[in-house]
Amino acid sequence: MADGWLRNAVVEAIGTMALVFVTVMVLGVSGLATPAALAYGFIVAALVASLGHISGGHFNPAITLAMLLARKIDVLGAAAYWVAQFAGGAVGALVVMLSTSEESVAAGTTRVNEEVVSIGGAIALEALATFILVLVVFGTVLDERSPVSVYPFAIGGAIIAGNAGLLQVTGGALNPARGFGPAVVSGEWDGLAAWLAGPLIGAALAWVLYQFVISDRQPSKPDFPEPVPPPPGPSLLP
Amino acid sequence: MADGWLRNAVVEAIGTMALVFVTVMVLGVSGLATPAALAYGFIVAALVASLGHISGGHFNPAITLAMLLARKIDVLGAAAYWVAQFAGGAVGALVVMLSTSEESVAAGTTRVNEEVVSIGGAIALEALATFILVLVVFGTVLDERSPVSVYPFAIGGAIIAGNAGLLQVTGGALNPARGFGPAVVSGEWDGLAAWLAGPLIGAALAWVLYQFVISDRQPSKPDFPEPVPPPPGPSLLP
Amino acid sequence: MADGWLRNAVVEAIGTMALVFVTVMVLGVSGLATPAALAYGFIVAALVASLGHISGGHFNPAITLAMLLARKIDVLGAAAYWVAQFAGGAVGALVVMLSTSEESVAAGTTRVNEEVVSIGGAIALEALATFILVLVVFGTVLDERSPVSVYPFAIGGAIIAGNAGLLQVTGGALNPARGFGPAVVSGEWDGLAAWLAGPLIGAALAWVLYQFVISDRQPSKPDFPEPVPPPPGPSLLP
Amino acid sequence: MADGWLRNAVVEAIGTMALVFVTVMVLGVSGLATPAALAYGFIVAALVASLGHISGGHFNPAITLAMLLARKIDVLGAAAYWVAQFAGGAVGALVVMLSTSEESVAAGTTRVNEEVVSIGGAIALEALATFILVLVVFGTVLDERSPVSVYPFAIGGAIIAGNAGLLQVTGGALNPARGFGPAVVSGEWDGLAAWLAGPLIGAALAWVLYQFVISDRQPSKPDFPEPVPPPPGPSLLP
Repeated sequence: MADGWLRNAVVEAIGTMALVFVTVMVLGVSGLATPAALAYGFIVAALVASLGHISGGHFNPAITLAMLLARKIDVLGAAAYWVAQFAGGAVGALVVMLSTSEESVAAGTTRVNEEVVSIGGAIALEALATFILVLVVFGTVLDERSPVSVYPFAIGGAIIAGNAGLLQVTGGALNPARGFGPAVVSGEWDGLAAWLAGPLIGAALAWVLYQFVISDRQPSKPDFPEPVPPPPGPSLLP
Repeated sequence: MADGWLRNAVVEAIGTMALVFVTVMVLGVSGLATPAALAYGFIVAALVASLGHISGGHFNPAITLAMLLARKIDVLGAAAYWVAQFAGGAVGALVVMLSTSEESVAAGTTRVNEEVVSIGGAIALEALATFILVLVVFGTVLDERSPVSVYPFAIGGAIIAGNAGLLQVTGGALNPARGFGPAVVSGEWDGLAAWLAGPLIGAALAWVLYQFVISDRQPSKPDFPEPVPPPPGPSLLP
Repeated sequence: MADGWLRNAVVEAIGTMALVFVTVMVLGVSGLATPAALAYGFIVAALVASLGHISGGHFNPAITLAMLLARKIDVLGAAAYWVAQFAGGAVGALVVMLSTSEESVAAGTTRVNEEVVSIGGAIALEALATFILVLVVFGTVLDERSPVSVYPFAIGGAIIAGNAGLLQVTGGALNPARGFGPAVVSGEWDGLAAWLAGPLIGAALAWVLYQFVISDRQPSKPDFPEPVPPPPGPSLLP
Repeated sequence: MADGWLRNAVVEAIGTMALVFVTVMVLGVSGLATPAALAYGFIVAALVASLGHISGGHFNPAITLAMLLARKIDVLGAAAYWVAQFAGGAVGALVVMLSTSEESVAAGTTRVNEEVVSIGGAIALEALATFILVLVVFGTVLDERSPVSVYPFAIGGAIIAGNAGLLQVTGGALNPARGFGPAVVSGEWDGLAAWLAGPLIGAALAWVLYQFVISDRQPSKPDFPEPVPPPPGPSLLP
C-alpha cells in the first residue's frame, strides 16, 4: 500500500462524490441545460486560455477569494479584482438590456426554484458545485504535476457539469459576478443568497481541503499574477 | 505489411466496433441524453485533469479493478479506493436528497428499461461500454506513446459517448459507484446487476485485451499512485 | 499589489463581462442553439488545428482585419484572404443549394430577429461577440505565454458560446463570410449590416484593447503566415 | 505579400467553405443532431487518443484509403484494415441487436432522406464532409507543424460538425464501416451509395488537395503504423 493512501482515498471519495452529485442532479432535477451550460463552460475555457496568463483568469470573485486564501494574490489586488469582476458582470448584462430588453435580462438572471429547493439547500448546492470548481482550479493551475495545458478546458468542464446540474434549481451561477450582473440590471435579487454566499463558502472549503489534505508535498510557487517569461516549449504558430 | 499487423487489425476492429455500437445505440434507442452525458463526461474530465496526478483519478471501482489486474495498485490500496468510491457516491446522492428531495434522487438513479433490454442484455451493454472506457484509460494513461495531456478529455469523451448511448436503456452508469450512490439513498436497486456486474466484467475484459494483445511491446512503468516529480515541461501559469 | 494591476483588472472585467453577456443571452433570448453552435465551433476548431499552421487559420474576414491591424499580414495578403474567404463561403452555401434546395440555404442564412433586437442592437451584439472571439485569437495565437496547443479549442469555444448566445437574435455569424455565403446564394440580405459591420467593428476594437492595454510587455513575433520549422516537441504519431 | 500566398488563399477558401457548409446544413436541414453527433465525435476522439499510436487510429475505410494514397500504409496492410473495420462495424451493430432488438438497429442505420436530397446529392454531401474530415486528419496527424496533441479532438470535432450537419439528410456516416455495420445486421441498404461511395470519393479528393497544393514544403515521415519510441516529453501519470 503506497504512501499517502489516506490522502488518495480522500481524493477518490471527493471525485466520486462529485460525479454522482452532478449526474443525479442533471437526471433528477434539471433537464434542459445544454446550450446554457455549454456556452458558460466554453466561454470560460476560451477566456482562461487566452487571458489566464495575463491576469490569472479568475473572472469569479469566489476564485479570487480562494487565491487570496492561498496567498497567490494580496488583499489590495483581490479587492481590485472584485471591483472589476462585479463591474464587468454588470456591463455584460447592461449590453443585453440595451440591445434587446429588460425582460431578456430578467429571464437570464439566476434564481432559486423554490418548488424544488429551500434557500439553505440552494446555498449548499452552489457551495458544493463551486467547491468542485475551485478544486479543479487548484489542481490544474497551481499544482505543477498536472498535465500540460489542460487547465482551461478542465475549468470549463467543471462549469458545464455544475451549471447543467443546477440550472433549473439554483440557477447554477457558481460565481457571484454571474449572479450580480443581471440582478443589478433587472432588479431581480431573489437568488442573492444562493449566488453570493454559496460560491464564497464553497471556495473557502476547497482551499481548506487543498491546503490541509491534498497539497502536503507540493513545492511553493510564486505569487499568482506575476509576469512570466515565455514558456520554453514549442512556439505555437508563425 | 508492417510488423504487428494482426494486433493493429484487432485494434482497428475494436475501434470501429466501438463507434458503430455507440452511434447505433444513440440513434436507435436513446435520444435525450445530451445534458446528462455532457455533465457526466466533463466532470470526470475535470476531476481527472485536476486530481489524477494525486490519486490516479479512478473515481470508479471498475477502473480500480483494472489497475489492480495491471498491478498498478496493490490489494489493500484497491480496497481503500473501493470503500472511498462507494462512500463518495453515497454522499453525492445524499447531498441531492438533503437539499432537494428523495424523488430527485430516485429520478437520478440508474435503472434498466425493461421494455427495451433484458437484464442479461443490460449487463452486456454496460460491460461493453466500460470495456471501451477502460481501454481508453489504459491507452492514454498507462501507454507512454500516447499524445501528451489528452487523457482527461479522452476519458471524458468515452463517458459522454457511452452514457449518451446507454442512458435510456441501462442508465449508462459505466461505474458501480455511480449506480450505488443514488440506489442506497433512494432504495431503488432495480439496476443493481447492470451497474455492478457489467462494469466489472467490462474492465476485466479490457485488461485481458490490453495485456495479451495490445501492449506487448510496452515498457513497464512504476506503480500507479506513487508520487512523481513535477514534469519538466513549461510551467502552467504564473 | 503586483505590477500591472490596472491592466489585470481590465482583463478581469472584460472576461467577467464576456461570461455574463453570453450566459444572459443564452438563457434570456436563445434556447435552441445546441447543434448549430457545436457544429460551428467544432468545425472551426478542427480547421484551425489542421490548417492554422499553413495559412494562419483565419477563415474569417474580421480576423484577417485584426491581423492586418496587428501587422501579422500585409495589405495584399489580406486582400487575397478576403477574396478567398468570401468565395469559399459562397461555395459552401452553393453546395447545399445544389444538393438539397434553395429553401435550405435560406433557412441557414443568418438574419436579424427584429422582434427581439434593432439593427443597431444587432450590430452591437455581433461586434461584442466578435470582439471576444478576436481577443481569444490574440491571446492564444499571438501571445507566447499562452498554454501550449490550446488555441484551436479556445477559438472554437468562443464561437460555441457566442453563436449559442446570438443564434436566435442576430444569427450569430461572428464572421462576414459566414453571413455572405448563404446570402449571396439565397438572395436574403436582411442581416447584412449585422454580419458585415458588427464583426469588423468588434475585431478592430479587440485589436485596440490588445495593442494598447493588454500586450504592453510582449515581445514581437514574425509575420503571421511565414513557414515555421517543425516544433521541437514530441513527434505526434508514427 | 508572403511566399505561398496562393496556397494560403486556397486553404482559407477551403476552410471558409467548410464552415459555411456545415453551419448552413445544420440550420437549414438538420436540427436534432446533438446527442448523436456528440457521441460519434467523442468516441472517435477517445479511440484516436488511446489507440491511435498503436494502429494509426483510422477506424474508417475512407481514412485507410487516404493513408494508402499517401503511402503511409501498404496495400496488404490496408486490406487487413478494411476487413477489420467492416467486421468491427458489423459486430458493433450485432451487439445492439442481440441486447435490444432488430428495430433498434434499423433505427440506427444511416439512410438518405429522399424528401430532402437526391442520391447524387447525398453522395456529394458525404464526399464533402469526409473530404473535410480527411483534410483534418492529414493536417493534424501527418503534418509535423501542427500543434501538439490536438489531433484526437480535431478529428472528433470534424465528425461532430459533419455528422450534425448531415444527420437528417444522408445519415452523416462519413465512414463506410459506420454505414455497413447496421446495414448488414438490419438488412436496410438504402443508403449504400451515400455511405460507401461518398466517403471514398471525399477521401481521395482530400489526398489530391493535400498532396499537390497544401503539403509542398513538408518533410517526409516514416510509414504510418510503425512502432515509435516513447515521446521525450513529460510522463503522463505516476
